[in-house]
Amino acid sequence: MEKWDGNEGTSAFHMPEWMKQEFNKRPTKIGRRSLSRSISQSSTDSYSSAASYTDSSDDETSPRDKQQKNSKGSSDFCVKNIKQAEFGRREIEIAEQEMPALMALRKRAQGEKPLAGAKIVGCTHITAQTAVLMETLGALGAQCRWAACNIYSTLNEVAAALAESGFPVFAWKGESEDDFWWCIDRCVNVEGWQPNMILDDGGDLTHWIYKKYPNMFKKIKGIVEESVTGVHRLYQLSKAGKLCVPAMNVNDSVTKQKFDNLYCCRESILDGLKRTTDMMFGGKQVVVCGYGEVGKGCCAALKAMGSIVYVTEIDPICALQACMDGFRLVKLNEVIRQVDIVITCTGNKNVVTREHLDRMKNSCIVCNMGHSNTEIDVASLRTPELTWERVRSQVDHVIWPDGKRIVLLAEGRLLNLSCSTVPTFVLSITATTQALALIELYNAPEGRYKQDVYLLPKKMDEYVASLHLPTFDAHLTELTDEQAKYLGLNKNGPFKPNYYRY
Amino acid sequence: MEKWDGNEGTSAFHMPEWMKQEFNKRPTKIGRRSLSRSISQSSTDSYSSAASYTDSSDDETSPRDKQQKNSKGSSDFCVKNIKQAEFGRREIEIAEQEMPALMALRKRAQGEKPLAGAKIVGCTHITAQTAVLMETLGALGAQCRWAACNIYSTLNEVAAALAESGFPVFAWKGESEDDFWWCIDRCVNVEGWQPNMILDDGGDLTHWIYKKYPNMFKKIKGIVEESVTGVHRLYQLSKAGKLCVPAMNVNDSVTKQKFDNLYCCRESILDGLKRTTDMMFGGKQVVVCGYGEVGKGCCAALKAMGSIVYVTEIDPICALQACMDGFRLVKLNEVIRQVDIVITCTGNKNVVTREHLDRMKNSCIVCNMGHSNTEIDVASLRTPELTWERVRSQVDHVIWPDGKRIVLLAEGRLLNLSCSTVPTFVLSITATTQALALIELYNAPEGRYKQDVYLLPKKMDEYVASLHLPTFDAHLTELTDEQAKYLGLNKNGPFKPNYYRY
Amino acid sequence: MEKWDGNEGTSAFHMPEWMKQEFNKRPTKIGRRSLSRSISQSSTDSYSSAASYTDSSDDETSPRDKQQKNSKGSSDFCVKNIKQAEFGRREIEIAEQEMPALMALRKRAQGEKPLAGAKIVGCTHITAQTAVLMETLGALGAQCRWAACNIYSTLNEVAAALAESGFPVFAWKGESEDDFWWCIDRCVNVEGWQPNMILDDGGDLTHWIYKKYPNMFKKIKGIVEESVTGVHRLYQLSKAGKLCVPAMNVNDSVTKQKFDNLYCCRESILDGLKRTTDMMFGGKQVVVCGYGEVGKGCCAALKAMGSIVYVTEIDPICALQACMDGFRLVKLNEVIRQVDIVITCTGNKNVVTREHLDRMKNSCIVCNMGHSNTEIDVASLRTPELTWERVRSQVDHVIWPDGKRIVLLAEGRLLNLSCSTVPTFVLSITATTQALALIELYNAPEGRYKQDVYLLPKKMDEYVASLHLPTFDAHLTELTDEQAKYLGLNKNGPFKPNYYRY
Amino acid sequence: MEKWDGNEGTSAFHMPEWMKQEFNKRPTKIGRRSLSRSISQSSTDSYSSAASYTDSSDDETSPRDKQQKNSKGSSDFCVKNIKQAEFGRREIEIAEQEMPALMALRKRAQGEKPLAGAKIVGCTHITAQTAVLMETLGALGAQCRWAACNIYSTLNEVAAALAESGFPVFAWKGESEDDFWWCIDRCVNVEGWQPNMILDDGGDLTHWIYKKYPNMFKKIKGIVEESVTGVHRLYQLSKAGKLCVPAMNVNDSVTKQKFDNLYCCRESILDGLKRTTDMMFGGKQVVVCGYGEVGKGCCAALKAMGSIVYVTEIDPICALQACMDGFRLVKLNEVIRQVDIVITCTGNKNVVTREHLDRMKNSCIVCNMGHSNTEIDVASLRTPELTWERVRSQVDHVIWPDGKRIVLLAEGRLLNLSCSTVPTFVLSITATTQALALIELYNAPEGRYKQDVYLLPKKMDEYVASLHLPTFDAHLTELTDEQAKYLGLNKNGPFKPNYYRY
Repeated sequence: MEKWDGNEGTSAFHMPEWMKQEFNKRPTKIGRRSLSRSISQSSTDSYSSAASYTDSSDDETSPRDKQQKNSKGSSDFCVKNIKQAEFGRREIEIAEQEMPALMALRKRAQGEKPLAGAKIVGCTHITAQTAVLMETLGALGAQCRWAACNIYSTLNEVAAALAESGFPVFAWKGESEDDFWWCIDRCVNVEGWQPNMILDDGGDLTHWIYKKYPNMFKKIKGIVEESVTGVHRLYQLSKAGKLCVPAMNVNDSVTKQKFDNLYCCRESILDGLKRTTDMMFGGKQVVVCGYGEVGKGCCAALKAMGSIVYVTEIDPICALQACMDGFRLVKLNEVIRQVDIVITCTGNKNVVTREHLDRMKNSCIVCNMGHSNTEIDVASLRTPELTWERVRSQVDHVIWPDGKRIVLLAEGRLLNLSCSTVPTFVLSITATTQALALIELYNAPEGRYKQDVYLLPKKMDEYVASLHLPTFDAHLTELTDEQAKYLGLNKNGPFKPNYYRY
Repeated sequence: MEKWDGNEGTSAFHMPEWMKQEFNKRPTKIGRRSLSRSISQSSTDSYSSAASYTDSSDDETSPRDKQQKNSKGSSDFCVKNIKQAEFGRREIEIAEQEMPALMALRKRAQGEKPLAGAKIVGCTHITAQTAVLMETLGALGAQCRWAACNIYSTLNEVAAALAESGFPVFAWKGESEDDFWWCIDRCVNVEGWQPNMILDDGGDLTHWIYKKYPNMFKKIKGIVEESVTGVHRLYQLSKAGKLCVPAMNVNDSVTKQKFDNLYCCRESILDGLKRTTDMMFGGKQVVVCGYGEVGKGCCAALKAMGSIVYVTEIDPICALQACMDGFRLVKLNEVIRQVDIVITCTGNKNVVTREHLDRMKNSCIVCNMGHSNTEIDVASLRTPELTWERVRSQVDHVIWPDGKRIVLLAEGRLLNLSCSTVPTFVLSITATTQALALIELYNAPEGRYKQDVYLLPKKMDEYVASLHLPTFDAHLTELTDEQAKYLGLNKNGPFKPNYYRY
Repeated sequence: MEKWDGNEGTSAFHMPEWMKQEFNKRPTKIGRRSLSRSISQSSTDSYSSAASYTDSSDDETSPRDKQQKNSKGSSDFCVKNIKQAEFGRREIEIAEQEMPALMALRKRAQGEKPLAGAKIVGCTHITAQTAVLMETLGALGAQCRWAACNIYSTLNEVAAALAESGFPVFAWKGESEDDFWWCIDRCVNVEGWQPNMILDDGGDLTHWIYKKYPNMFKKIKGIVEESVTGVHRLYQLSKAGKLCVPAMNVNDSVTKQKFDNLYCCRESILDGLKRTTDMMFGGKQVVVCGYGEVGKGCCAALKAMGSIVYVTEIDPICALQACMDGFRLVKLNEVIRQVDIVITCTGNKNVVTREHLDRMKNSCIVCNMGHSNTEIDVASLRTPELTWERVRSQVDHVIWPDGKRIVLLAEGRLLNLSCSTVPTFVLSITATTQALALIELYNAPEGRYKQDVYLLPKKMDEYVASLHLPTFDAHLTELTDEQAKYLGLNKNGPFKPNYYRY
Repeated sequence: MEKWDGNEGTSAFHMPEWMKQEFNKRPTKIGRRSLSRSISQSSTDSYSSAASYTDSSDDETSPRDKQQKNSKGSSDFCVKNIKQAEFGRREIEIAEQEMPALMALRKRAQGEKPLAGAKIVGCTHITAQTAVLMETLGALGAQCRWAACNIYSTLNEVAAALAESGFPVFAWKGESEDDFWWCIDRCVNVEGWQPNMILDDGGDLTHWIYKKYPNMFKKIKGIVEESVTGVHRLYQLSKAGKLCVPAMNVNDSVTKQKFDNLYCCRESILDGLKRTTDMMFGGKQVVVCGYGEVGKGCCAALKAMGSIVYVTEIDPICALQACMDGFRLVKLNEVIRQVDIVITCTGNKNVVTREHLDRMKNSCIVCNMGHSNTEIDVASLRTPELTWERVRSQVDHVIWPDGKRIVLLAEGRLLNLSCSTVPTFVLSITATTQALALIELYNAPEGRYKQDVYLLPKKMDEYVASLHLPTFDAHLTELTDEQAKYLGLNKNGPFKPNYYRY
């Protein structure tokens, strides 16, 4: 089976360089997919109770070759070991406690079943949080079939629990690439069932249907896509006039953006650095490359912990923000000799070059909070004169001939995903956003959405936020009729013009 | 002469309630215009050196009745006293030092004179900063005629200095309403000169031309409008299909918004409270109504000073931001009895009602950082059982029958404008934005802008920011060719998609 | 009449250099006393309602030459104008509202009259806050006679109100030096009344008694001194074996120190800079010389407002604290060319030299938050090649031949006293501390205090704090018996060993 | 062999209740010693490279029964396995890189060998950092013999490396109580060698010599003690008149206090909570019991991360500080139902009672950052109706009959020691303080120190700080002669009076 990027020549859309690189990192038979958010969640963290069950299942038979049935007699699924269902159910129950928004959604929307008749095919990380999402979609009336968007990130117990409760799930931890596409195909290519909604994370499922079953789009009411990469692909399709159904870009909804980037990274930068290096932040000199949401979060946290923070930027507006927030705006070269930590948050490539690395002082820590693994030119460090020493999981010392050591974290991959965890609350925001986007697209009157890529309607975005307020015992004020009239607003929102920046 | 709002019945557009109220506050013969930003700048601050010259000119003759000529023999202007020109020039020179962006613009764009042929009619506050803007426009090739957008805010010395150096300026401090419209008319109704660009602040100039000289729009290339009110009017015109030239909404440019609201208010809330009450912030309980940019600035500043801050919000997204930033989100009623300070930043009306005021504790301070003077229901305090005591300029004690005192600042008008000052740096951002918007509209190729309201192009917004970076000795990083290609960006920007939120 | 420093040769104790300088600034006939804290409070602030009464009393007769009686017929006082009593009473009543601790003390201690029999002679600034203190001492059973410790700081109305209600007060605004000592003498040299307690601020009263009435010390139970200078004098006396009664150094009590320095300066640095320069703090580079309590307050405030702050220190412990709090520790020379603001908080002399001033960039602001007026070598700027231009009250531009301007605030005197105000809450802490110190010394059993200088007993210090907690609606936890036993503490305190640093 | 507390009746000093409890936790044959700081450092952290060597030495023979020699033929030591020396040496070398102060001390003081002739017996945790200290003492001229102060905290490889390089070390991980005292005895009870200095951590070594070899004190010049418990014992001895040599309380030196408590806990509270619970801090409501240095650190960190923090206090001064720093001061009962996290930092017992635990909401996290394991009444949770569920290492869910779960961390023991790590920089501060205290006591002229407990001289404290400044590239300013004279200070310090609070 060909990979999508193998078809580039014949592809309908131009692929920018960074996306090509993403593809080059995709799994080969013995390859590794790039680390993605939920992987850290399901990683073999020594603390994780779930991990142990997984490890105990040292069954070497491929799930594709197994005959498994759930307790109701169904065999319309393919998971590692259906017997792990009970453990997975416990994980799901714990996740339910921390995802009150989805639980509230189940309650509020259950009467009217807003997804009655929906046939959703999904391709996401398969974790306890996803399970809560799927079971919520089910409770709202939808039928679901699901595959994993990453060959490593599936929690086998959770997959088993979902299969046991009747969800056709096709996923296990450690799929081959062939397994990967086989699972996706099993979700969509099924007798007597055709999806009318797509929930995708990365665009692989969407791509597969485009390539193999383009006719399916006739019945499909819309695509909900959450990843940067998948969204980029959709915009390219749209630009090329090849997008044949409405698509919802949930990645750029306000709430999701703020939580994935600003709020989450404000905490995970500290967490990732501590878990890997046990360093003290106070008094350290740090340069943060990039002052977008991620950079803002990193800078705020480190400043609060007593670090002295420098910022580099290419965008003059973000640069001015850095100034007003109290950070010296410099070029990397100006401070590279003096800093104790270098953090990249740019989404760019080769922001930290070998030349920079050569000039850093002994014991300088280098890590990436931005995008993929391109920001630090790690390849340039794979030269004979440098010695690599693995001192801990995710921590390498790269040693120069004169004895200078650079502390490289996660081999330049994302620190927050490799060496920290994503709080369930952040995943709850994302899952709720996905659920509402599906409801919106499925129920939208004819003509509201054309064959284009849309941001989540502001009102839905606001609803996601409102569902999470009770967690903080936060009490929203309601407009009086008089006030609503004065402002020219509906009392239930949306409350802001589209260009509002929050 | 009729006021615009007097014509509402025949007006092309629907006027929302808050705008009607704005109008009701507009000057009558003995009335007062609402305080606007620059007024505080030109107020009779005992520190201000300029103020003294003004006070000494106790000439009672109306400028309209005077015969004045500048040293070159021109009498195409109308100011209080042309002899004050020298003092005004000094004020302008000081302002030039603090507006490096405009000075840089003069230098960079002077060779090519991007405004050669432009005939700009302007209606703004007339202050030293405006003078720097006008003289910059002149240096770029434009001819200008100017009136004041506020009957109280003109600095007479500055107007004199501008007249002396050849600018037809029609403005003085303390105009009557009739004077106000007369001055505007003198700017546009002139033999042998017709404007082709409008720079407006509040929409009065635009309105006047619409009403009296609609044919002028044939030659006009565009309108640049900076105020919330004026922008609202333009959107209404556009919605009604009556906008006959392109208009640029510079109020909502990123840079201007952040500086006018977040960065400026973060400082002016402290300044305004200190200058009026000498209070100590540490340990005080404060409720901030509204968590937009202004509210965010106020909350951050007070939290940093050791206050305990509560927030009220109607918008769940902003509410969630408040939570994540560490503020308890409450309804006003929940905390009204315990707080020491109440600050409104909503843009709404009657956010603080008489009922709230009745329940506040003794010595509670109440002030408005939001919009206009509607947020606190001050009218409800004008009842016989309450005693008002003016204890300082801008500070009233309202005394309940039981002796309880509420400390009301600026009679509920904007604290930051009434009791604080706007730093020149913030005015520099605005003026530079206006200049670039004029250049853009004037030079845009046919068809780029239609008869609609536009935000400042992102590239221009970025340029405004970049012109202000040298003030902070901030060093921007440039993309390499390789990086620009990787990101799919032009090396000179714009660097972000339009929906980017900063 | 000789000044104390005129007697130095014969004085009992060695006077360090900084104290000699203090003396040199003391009033001569046409001289000025150094600004002291309460002066700003009583300054002709245009906001102050009190100030206006003072101004209206343009009576040129010296109070010493007037015959005045209060309504009860007493003439045992000397104030500017007894008729101003009513205005002063109102000021006192307002101050009472903001000094709840003293009011609580009146209530709690009134039954037992802990100062019954005390005859207190006092020499402090005479302000509304002092009046609240004096009337509290009265309510606790003491008789008081009072003079001013500063020839400029007396609020005449308040003095009148005190005289009217029966306090023998000898003070007015604008005393000559001869008046100054005459007033002090009138307090102590009185038929049939001899003080048994001294409350001093600066040591002048103590000195006077030492010089003129040394026998009085036989009946005096103790001295309470609040100023740095006065405390220093007492330690010198003690060292020289000349201290003949116990003295209480209230200046160094924990609560007073934290409020006078850390908490107060954290706010007044912002206030002082804003009121004088209207500058924006965001993005500004600032160097703070000295990281004691004052420096810590300044740094924290400016960092929070978005300034980039550098610190200089001589003490390695404070230096390390600055590092851990996130400030670059530098020598002044390293950053002097690049900073926008220089703030001294050292207590040292010539911290900012002419050489530094020569190297500062245009528009650099220079001010002193530390001690006296020695920190900036202002004298070095009084040279012919530099031009001084007074641009506002308390703001001078010093102009170099090449046009460079340095903005010097308050001529190098204390910014927080000259250009800001001291919140009543801070004065309340001080006054309460003084009252408790008097009670302690007066009631201490024989032998508890010897002829030495003591810090306020920790339990009293804690009591001062506890009296101020209700202002913040703060609820203290009480130890259970079991816990008190476990910790080996008395349930009512003191709670910490003497060396505890808070 | 009797334990110290077994002798209490005959003991010279009164033992307060908390100390008795400490003793009751001490090791029995199969018992556990209380966790101490370095234990976490040497714990079987999955990241720790050192840990793996330890695990591989599954030799069950007691070290006391082994015959081991180092490469020079000496057998004057007792460690787990001398062959691990090489691994331990590497650990020591890494630690050396992060302890620049001790390395600088070696260099600076090496010429004069200030400890020439010193015979130091030590009893501390045996870690790589201790090894750097011991080898520094050796380089300064001292002979050392060493035992472990904790039966679990010894890093066997490090002990081996020390033995290999000639240090008589008697310690291994997992000693029995009998081993513990045997090791101490082997350090002091040796032919032809008598200690003249004691370095103790906890007081056990000191106690042993008091009990068994009181005559040794004739030659002993002093004791340096670093722990709270050991210091308390010394003060008791002193009070009882039984202290027969000078002792230095290094625990309360400024630098050590600030780093052990404020700076370290500011970071470890976040680290400990993240590693155990992966929770998000933003928006969480937290109550911190106690606002001493530890509480201040915890509060500052959590506030910065967006938590809403309440504080409880018994000491009104600390309470007022909490108010001024922006925290609501409450009684625990007022907020116990609403908070998400409860953190104790009091040093007290039963601060969190069963009644509090009963009232907490579901999922509330409870942990202890204070002292020992007394603060939370964990014993009260060991009742039949509650179910304990271990969900991760150091994390228990305690489940109420109604399903409510409380998340108890580290079973109520110290979170920062159990679930976080102590940065080497903090240990460097402590070790340097110990070295300087030894030098001071050893070299002090006759009479400077009597048979009492002393704080580290301020000048030494300052010296510790100054040795750590280069780590931050921090540049100290030196007083000019003129300034030193003005301030009455020596140019090299000490710079502050003894009562200065920093």
